[in-house]
Amino acid sequence: MVPVGEHWGQSALDLAGAAVQAVRQDAGIDGVDLLVVANMLAASGRHGQLNLGGQIADWSGLRGIEAFKAEAACASGGSAFRAGWLAVASGQVDVALVVGVEKMTETLGPEVTLGLASAADADFEVPHGPSFVALNALIMRRYMHEYGWKREDFAPFSIVAHDNASRNPYARLQDRISLEAYRKARMICDPINLLDASPIGDGAAAVLLAPLDRFSPSSGRAPLRVAACTSATDSLAIHDRREPLRLRAGEESAARAYALAGVGPKDIDFFELHDAFSIMSALSLEACGFAAQGQAPRLGLDGDLAADGRLPIATHGGLKARGHPVGATGVYQIVEVVRQLWGEAGRNQLRRAQLGMAQNVGGSGATIVTTILQRSN
Amino acid sequence: MVPVGEHWGQSALDLAGAAVQAVRQDAGIDGVDLLVVANMLAASGRHGQLNLGGQIADWSGLRGIEAFKAEAACASGGSAFRAGWLAVASGQVDVALVVGVEKMTETLGPEVTLGLASAADADFEVPHGPSFVALNALIMRRYMHEYGWKREDFAPFSIVAHDNASRNPYARLQDRISLEAYRKARMICDPINLLDASPIGDGAAAVLLAPLDRFSPSSGRAPLRVAACTSATDSLAIHDRREPLRLRAGEESAARAYALAGVGPKDIDFFELHDAFSIMSALSLEACGFAAQGQAPRLGLDGDLAADGRLPIATHGGLKARGHPVGATGVYQIVEVVRQLWGEAGRNQLRRAQLGMAQNVGGSGATIVTTILQRSN
Repeated sequence: MVPVGEHWGQSALDLAGAAVQAVRQDAGIDGVDLLVVANMLAASGRHGQLNLGGQIADWSGLRGIEAFKAEAACASGGSAFRAGWLAVASGQVDVALVVGVEKMTETLGPEVTLGLASAADADFEVPHGPSFVALNALIMRRYMHEYGWKREDFAPFSIVAHDNASRNPYARLQDRISLEAYRKARMICDPINLLDASPIGDGAAAVLLAPLDRFSPSSGRAPLRVAACTSATDSLAIHDRREPLRLRAGEESAARAYALAGVGPKDIDFFELHDAFSIMSALSLEACGFAAQGQAPRLGLDGDLAADGRLPIATHGGLKARGHPVGATGVYQIVEVVRQLWGEAGRNQLRRAQLGMAQNVGGSGATIVTTILQRSN
Repeated sequence: MVPVGEHWGQSALDLAGAAVQAVRQDAGIDGVDLLVVANMLAASGRHGQLNLGGQIADWSGLRGIEAFKAEAACASGGSAFRAGWLAVASGQVDVALVVGVEKMTETLGPEVTLGLASAADADFEVPHGPSFVALNALIMRRYMHEYGWKREDFAPFSIVAHDNASRNPYARLQDRISLEAYRKARMICDPINLLDASPIGDGAAAVLLAPLDRFSPSSGRAPLRVAACTSATDSLAIHDRREPLRLRAGEESAARAYALAGVGPKDIDFFELHDAFSIMSALSLEACGFAAQGQAPRLGLDGDLAADGRLPIATHGGLKARGHPVGATGVYQIVEVVRQLWGEAGRNQLRRAQLGMAQNVGGSGATIVTTILQRSN
């Protein structure tokens, strides 16, 4: 992965190319059969770029190989990983390279806001005026109303994320934050304040998928097994959901992932969740069975989610502080799980990291991909 | 499929939903595990729509199933079909639904031209001003120069396509054209005239992929086998190619497809090619080994490509006359191959249709998907 940030001197191709080069050197595998690109916004606007698959393959020195782009808004990264995994599982593709890339910071603010709104329903949500933050604010307010939480009960999600990011040189925001700072943070869209919301960013991350026997033991690293990568959907519009406080697609994809991996929530050592907004952390934890409905903030208040807690989350800073280069985020999550499982997470290394999980959310819960990776020895 | 046309009263969701409903009724299969959406332009512009996978699943009564969008410009349809096929081949997905959809005609002309240019290289081609037609005109002029063909030697490609479209109620342009009309056609971008170029359109088409044993014999139809579906890429920019008159990605994906299917060009009964411009027909025929380099126009002049010829092309009208709803086109091609193999192509039915091929081109040859379908009895 490349650090998430404002990369004024580098294009999307530069960023993707750097991630591809890094993963190929890292894996020690030369031949690549398939490139799946995860991206959300490059096609938007008047001077958009489609056909990123062929373009990034060419730019990365892989001209000619099979390639396409997978898109499911902010769940593009997870969806691309799922597509790459299925391709290898089919036996027709030996080595699949998945690269997530997004270039956002040189676009004007209102354009980014419009672009992000493309993840919401363009017919039945966007015309009424809400930005993507506003849609999440509606969910958060309802959640507080239903379950009796106060605003600051959500603070631990962000405090933990920033704490972990402070030890991650790839993170966009590497400063720790206090409860006091959270309390005083500027309101963006009530009840979401600045420290509930993840920052956009430029970035790229890549992973390589291949049959386990392709990895030579000489690399000194344990091969990692994709125990599960599953995906499910829900309506785009929040108002179309019977229970807007439940991520049904998250529940469904998590249930399938647990069944496929033969594990349950208690077996998961750490969880890279999709904390685009702190309310999404709560909903994702509940969808995956880590907390009862409406009770996820308790995990944060009890210290369970910190690096030394029962279920560490956002171990590299999460979307909140590592940063959220939207279409690439799902691939960053996978890379971070890999680093933990390999024992290469530096100052963020967890003591116990045998089974790691990531959940990647597109839209306000419309597409959700759950991935479980496992050390195979 | 729905007829390609100007569907003022129907949204992209309406069109996609109609195609999904039709294919599900047709196949007599209820459960669908995965939806892959092929689309090129819905994300473009200021009020774009991302996350079409979840949205179309929901709209079609399939809320909750796994879904994502595959995009490779005009090769999105073929790429989505390839992704669906790999998913079923993996054994993890039982039934995959692939729907291609595009809604273009209500967009203003200049916006469509800009959108289509997104398939070209946004850094190194588009800033110099050429539209997508202009890029193809450069190729055509060079081809004429190198091989000594005159403009009207390309007429048979379009005449055959319109002739076939005149018998296809789903076609956008159902009028036959004469050599005289071709000669007098208005020049769009020299040497491409109006009758060398395919019309954009609104449309949607869907296919269903499943293990062969899922099809019940009671349907009365022969199950069709995907003998091959392969994809390859090339540089986006034409000027980056050593030989701009060769579709390297077409050659590569065709070679892989032939090898996988265990057949050669001589075994193919008919060919649904990507005649976005008549020059692309020539290059595609050569890439697939149906003609020597620079000699494809001869096939047209000799009558080989007509419905009663040696290698019928564009049997439902092709992009040229059935119409070119860009992201959906690759799926239309597959549906048309299916209709021929099932003997349900109506007045376009070929006498011999055991082995049909489609080639779907994204950009000016940057992503090319080749599919071979076969009657399995």
